[in-house]
Amino acid sequence: MRLELPHSGERFGAVRINELQRVIELDSGSDDGPGSVPPDAIRAVERDMVIVVPCMNETRRVIEGVLSGIPHDCLIVLVSHSSRHPVDRYEMEVQSVRQFCRHAERAAVAVHQRDPGLAAAMKAAGMPELIDEDGLVRSGKGEAMLIGMALAAMSGRRHVGYVDADNYVPGAVNEYCKAYAAGLHLAETPYAMVRIFWHSKPKLRAGRLFFSRRGRSSEVTNHFLNRLIAEHSGFGTDVVATGNAGEHAVTLDLGTRMRLASGFAVEPFEYMDLLEQFGGVLEPSSSDVMASSVSVAQIETRNPHFHDNKGEEHVAAMRTQALNVLYHSPLCLPAVRAEIAAFLTDEGVLAPGQEPPRARIYPPVGSLALDRLFDVLTAEATTFHQVERVRPTVVALDRPILRTQVPEVGLAG
Amino acid sequence: MRLELPHSGERFGAVRINELQRVIELDSGSDDGPGSVPPDAIRAVERDMVIVVPCMNETRRVIEGVLSGIPHDCLIVLVSHSSRHPVDRYEMEVQSVRQFCRHAERAAVAVHQRDPGLAAAMKAAGMPELIDEDGLVRSGKGEAMLIGMALAAMSGRRHVGYVDADNYVPGAVNEYCKAYAAGLHLAETPYAMVRIFWHSKPKLRAGRLFFSRRGRSSEVTNHFLNRLIAEHSGFGTDVVATGNAGEHAVTLDLGTRMRLASGFAVEPFEYMDLLEQFGGVLEPSSSDVMASSVSVAQIETRNPHFHDNKGEEHVAAMRTQALNVLYHSPLCLPAVRAEIAAFLTDEGVLAPGQEPPRARIYPPVGSLALDRLFDVLTAEATTFHQVERVRPTVVALDRPILRTQVPEVGLAG
Repeated sequence: MRLELPHSGERFGAVRINELQRVIELDSGSDDGPGSVPPDAIRAVERDMVIVVPCMNETRRVIEGVLSGIPHDCLIVLVSHSSRHPVDRYEMEVQSVRQFCRHAERAAVAVHQRDPGLAAAMKAAGMPELIDEDGLVRSGKGEAMLIGMALAAMSGRRHVGYVDADNYVPGAVNEYCKAYAAGLHLAETPYAMVRIFWHSKPKLRAGRLFFSRRGRSSEVTNHFLNRLIAEHSGFGTDVVATGNAGEHAVTLDLGTRMRLASGFAVEPFEYMDLLEQFGGVLEPSSSDVMASSVSVAQIETRNPHFHDNKGEEHVAAMRTQALNVLYHSPLCLPAVRAEIAAFLTDEGVLAPGQEPPRARIYPPVGSLALDRLFDVLTAEATTFHQVERVRPTVVALDRPILRTQVPEVGLAG
Repeated sequence: MRLELPHSGERFGAVRINELQRVIELDSGSDDGPGSVPPDAIRAVERDMVIVVPCMNETRRVIEGVLSGIPHDCLIVLVSHSSRHPVDRYEMEVQSVRQFCRHAERAAVAVHQRDPGLAAAMKAAGMPELIDEDGLVRSGKGEAMLIGMALAAMSGRRHVGYVDADNYVPGAVNEYCKAYAAGLHLAETPYAMVRIFWHSKPKLRAGRLFFSRRGRSSEVTNHFLNRLIAEHSGFGTDVVATGNAGEHAVTLDLGTRMRLASGFAVEPFEYMDLLEQFGGVLEPSSSDVMASSVSVAQIETRNPHFHDNKGEEHVAAMRTQALNVLYHSPLCLPAVRAEIAAFLTDEGVLAPGQEPPRARIYPPVGSLALDRLFDVLTAEATTFHQVERVRPTVVALDRPILRTQVPEVGLAG
């Protein structure tokens, strides 16, 4: 893959946010010119990468397409929140994963977010905050991502990437994963994140496809994230283009140190958390990270993002939850806080004078006792499946995919 | 890339048509299991492959996307039939190609199908049949493909693949090229062809996307191609699924021996020509090929085919031109010929008792004097561009992309 080299970016303490860089070609072959990340370098990252697919009631065909786009050397982790009654959609998803893994000779892990055994495991591992009044892991995208990161940390691999399950184009999924690998390879620090900016999001308008450049929610989130940063530096900026990026990857050295937010707040809050922990304004949480640096790359894909239209309500929820976490950040200066409140009041989301609700913020995955998580998960979570790599006619001799011991990576320092 | 292994197929003389095989995963990494074609094997084919992009008035953005999806090691050949007045769209296309090649550090060749210099070159090289009453190369897809194959033969590379320029998904273009390379690698003969079967073709229906499995024209073409084959063997067959495949690749050892048909007849006629020349029913044209075998692989992609809707007229033209070449083939037995005539009459395309028109069939590219083609092309064709690979800050030392000498491959034996 060949990427445009970023010309500049913003620096906020130890955090370096690169400006958007485009994918120039999906496959740059054996070329070693500037911006070209050779296949061997990409594969080296993929071998160390877990791809988490959060999934909720997607059709089987779409899921199968998504799986087929994930590079072979990555470990697949499916975290499902699909309905189990009247039809057990999760069971169908696990069947699809098993079938794909059999044909593709690869491994995967799957779990259902609302499995009581998973809740017990997360509680035992030290994160009771994640459990709701029904004794189950809370519903929400942030919660699914947190589960995915915990499973990734147990794999002994070094990176985790997220790919939404509602993507109609396997080639786009493939491009996201290659972009993760290329971006993480190019980052010159173990604390790196790659966020995807979609080339376009085709919409149906008057019977034809219109290739829209901007998401309905992203524009607002990015605007206020940039305002928040600019208010500190005194210089206006457009650097953040991926505030709501669902498609992103992170090294586990960084990811397991990050606090994740609940629901749709999770993606913009990643920016806030990096700035809060490593931005140098508040007390830093880790001297190791501060001594190195945190790199955020933003990569514009070539493929359009054809996915399910989740409707206006979904978009409004995303936007409000994003602005809530910005508003409540200790880094958000009064002028920006007032602008956010004014915006939400204008939109009719808040009554005049009302404060935005606070999103739930979870402790870092690095604080979990992964050995206890693993033990309870395997003992009690009936929806937890480790699909091992099988060779036809050869007895599977692989060890379990996830480790029973706490791996060395993934501990907050 | 990992492909499903074909279980069976049809044999017609020296021609082996494999049944459809699905792409299981886009990138099978370093796995060496059954059906997995490792990246190095794919790259070896790509280095020897020319990708021809026939193009007609596509928008710049779409063309740029298509280019970005063609693997780096392939040589790009653009054959344009775009309008030149009032806006010179071809000039815009060449600009796009130049810009892409500069960023991606790669080479390309471009020519306009209606350039008088190209017509002069094709005439000098020995194919006056290609020239119309205006003294220009005839309009039509088959003619564009023939020009592309002639340019490919001059590149000294061993394979040529075709990718339509109206594709909205760069990842799909990438998958086609990978499938070509994987299929040609797996073919155990120098006389091999790979044809793409689209996973689906999304259409707008009632404001949502419907993922249609079959093209409106393909169903009819495939039906009659299968009937034509079955009438010889006495066994009904569904083996042909790619009669109209615009996306296909061929070794130049085979391609330069094939006669191509005009217009939209070109794709189904490829099947007919292989069966006529190498099917063992008519007099074989080459004992070399007969002693070896001809392999046709049909690969079902993972990506849907999102492209421009060319409308009903286009579909009707494709279907009629396809059936015309089947009808007139000396291999078409009377029963099938009668069925085709009845079908076209029912459709109102033919008056009762009327014969379908004959498509123009051109001699093989291997019969061309490529040295004369090259000389006249470089001397007279003002739209002919060889965009060389440039390194920033390094003087380009590459030799011309196309050769002045007739390469060893590409001669009909």
